[in-house]
Amino acid sequence: MAAQAQVVENKQVILKGYVDEVPKETDMEMKVSKLELKPPSQGSSAILVKNLYLSCDPYMRGRMRDFHGSYIPPFVPGKALEGFGVSKVIYSDNPNFKAGDFISGFTGWEEYSLILKTDQLRKIQPDDQVPLSFHVGLLGMPGFTAYAGFYEVCSPSKGEYVFVSAASGAVGQLVGQLAKLHGCYVVGSAGSKEKVDLLKNKLGFDEAFNYKEESDLGAALKRYFPQGIDIYFDNVGGEMLDAALLNMRIHGRIAICGMVSQQSLSNPKGIYNLFCLISKRIRMQGFLQSDYLHLYSRFLELVSSYYKQGKIVYIEDMNEGLESAPSAFVGLFHGKNVGKQIIRVARE
Amino acid sequence: MAAQAQVVENKQVILKGYVDEVPKETDMEMKVSKLELKPPSQGSSAILVKNLYLSCDPYMRGRMRDFHGSYIPPFVPGKALEGFGVSKVIYSDNPNFKAGDFISGFTGWEEYSLILKTDQLRKIQPDDQVPLSFHVGLLGMPGFTAYAGFYEVCSPSKGEYVFVSAASGAVGQLVGQLAKLHGCYVVGSAGSKEKVDLLKNKLGFDEAFNYKEESDLGAALKRYFPQGIDIYFDNVGGEMLDAALLNMRIHGRIAICGMVSQQSLSNPKGIYNLFCLISKRIRMQGFLQSDYLHLYSRFLELVSSYYKQGKIVYIEDMNEGLESAPSAFVGLFHGKNVGKQIIRVARE
Repeated sequence: MAAQAQVVENKQVILKGYVDEVPKETDMEMKVSKLELKPPSQGSSAILVKNLYLSCDPYMRGRMRDFHGSYIPPFVPGKALEGFGVSKVIYSDNPNFKAGDFISGFTGWEEYSLILKTDQLRKIQPDDQVPLSFHVGLLGMPGFTAYAGFYEVCSPSKGEYVFVSAASGAVGQLVGQLAKLHGCYVVGSAGSKEKVDLLKNKLGFDEAFNYKEESDLGAALKRYFPQGIDIYFDNVGGEMLDAALLNMRIHGRIAICGMVSQQSLSNPKGIYNLFCLISKRIRMQGFLQSDYLHLYSRFLELVSSYYKQGKIVYIEDMNEGLESAPSAFVGLFHGKNVGKQIIRVARE
Repeated sequence: MAAQAQVVENKQVILKGYVDEVPKETDMEMKVSKLELKPPSQGSSAILVKNLYLSCDPYMRGRMRDFHGSYIPPFVPGKALEGFGVSKVIYSDNPNFKAGDFISGFTGWEEYSLILKTDQLRKIQPDDQVPLSFHVGLLGMPGFTAYAGFYEVCSPSKGEYVFVSAASGAVGQLVGQLAKLHGCYVVGSAGSKEKVDLLKNKLGFDEAFNYKEESDLGAALKRYFPQGIDIYFDNVGGEMLDAALLNMRIHGRIAICGMVSQQSLSNPKGIYNLFCLISKRIRMQGFLQSDYLHLYSRFLELVSSYYKQGKIVYIEDMNEGLESAPSAFVGLFHGKNVGKQIIRVARE
């Protein structure tokens, strides 16, 4: 076959070694290897894909540590990182996928990937109204995290007061919009004037504030929620969580999502206001979207439909080229991204 | 009426002023006033009672602070403390109670009390098999806290691994026994060899340990729960809560009860391991028994019946005389009490 003859260069983002502190660009390096584009060996069920979009997600930091007790194993130093992506199938030995299909799911941080573990990949139904990149954002893991966290963990009711931290991020921006559509009053926090403007003017939050301009987070929340908070969707942990605890209403709910897990292993930050849990009878719950996958098709239908009706928007921060991946990823931990951080590796 | 002529001495335990630190005996003082034993004024709906048993409960410490944002207002300096008690009605202007009735509910830390707020008092159905004092312990607020917390907050299943701190205390001893009756494996922690022996030999816990003998609480829990903890009934907060977080199983539940609220206002202790909430999808919930009062009669029936069948026991630490109340109360915060701390003010 002619295809067997085609050898391409395959750029990769390699993890150099385990990382204990906040990740730096120098923790990763670019490497170029050769790859023969040919059908996977028969019976392997593998697929060979060209990666189009890669998702930069904060949870990946946990995989850079030499810690095996988590829900997902660490990366392997010397090998390409992996994460959620949108890819196009080139060759398939798997009856569920054929050449030309677009898929979303775990892939490598490289131009081409041979994917052996295909059971959690999703075939994307082509839809002119929905950008392909949305399948790692609005319609992917972050969007589903927002959906499952808000509806299943926060038990929202119309008219309730909702606070979202990291509100313009991949998860937060959808939480806020779902809460608005649910009839809640929604305030978001973010780390720059630009993000605060987006929250108020584009994402439809009732109010938003820049936490970096607040010397007392508890007082800031008191100002935005004089009546208290019913639901806190926590994307950051630390001081903001402590401040929110002080401002919760009776029978409030706190969904613990995302970055608190990142902060804690190497740089623990104490939480001092858990006494509020008792007097206010607060339920605080950690969750992973993967526990709710039975709801995924319902989510996809609802959120796609909201998007097509113009009821929600989704902001992406799109970096061009695999070479930009290390700095884009590192930027997540410094609030550099505005909206969902994505790497465009290739156009179809 | 002859009764109007009877004037008695009424000993009282007075709060001298607000207390920020751990309460000391000198924060309270004994006072003797005169009281005319006569029917309450007509239309007042009040009752005049003789107090028989008073309950020493850790939550009372919160009422010694000048803090009005809690679920219950502070005590008034210069006046008698109040708390749960068992009392005998002497005079009643209330159709629900008559002279000679035994009641449980809020009363004063004094020999006789004029109770104006009677809507939450309960009439005790006389029962030779059940000591009157149980109505502030096993069958009162602490027992109901154990019942509501275990069944309603912890969502227990047969075969699950349950850890109870302050396990020989007023609440913990019943939690552990209910968990055993539910088919769980139960380990308790306490602060002395005597208490550990009680847990293992009298209260039927599978295992128990003295936390004061453990230099590393996380390692101790790992030893007793090599497979991890499904349910942690937390009566203490602080370091034990942090250690339990590290040892929880996936989808574990933590009921936050009692003293964590006491520690935090004046002497905050940071919690560092909340990152476990996410990877293990833990639900952590504060609660107050008062939210579950619709279940009280069901509780009373179940727990009385268990007791009468000999399926549970209940350990009381009974002090004699109102004069012993300040030291008994202060002892709670130093682990002096063995079992539920009660003051016998008078025999019927």
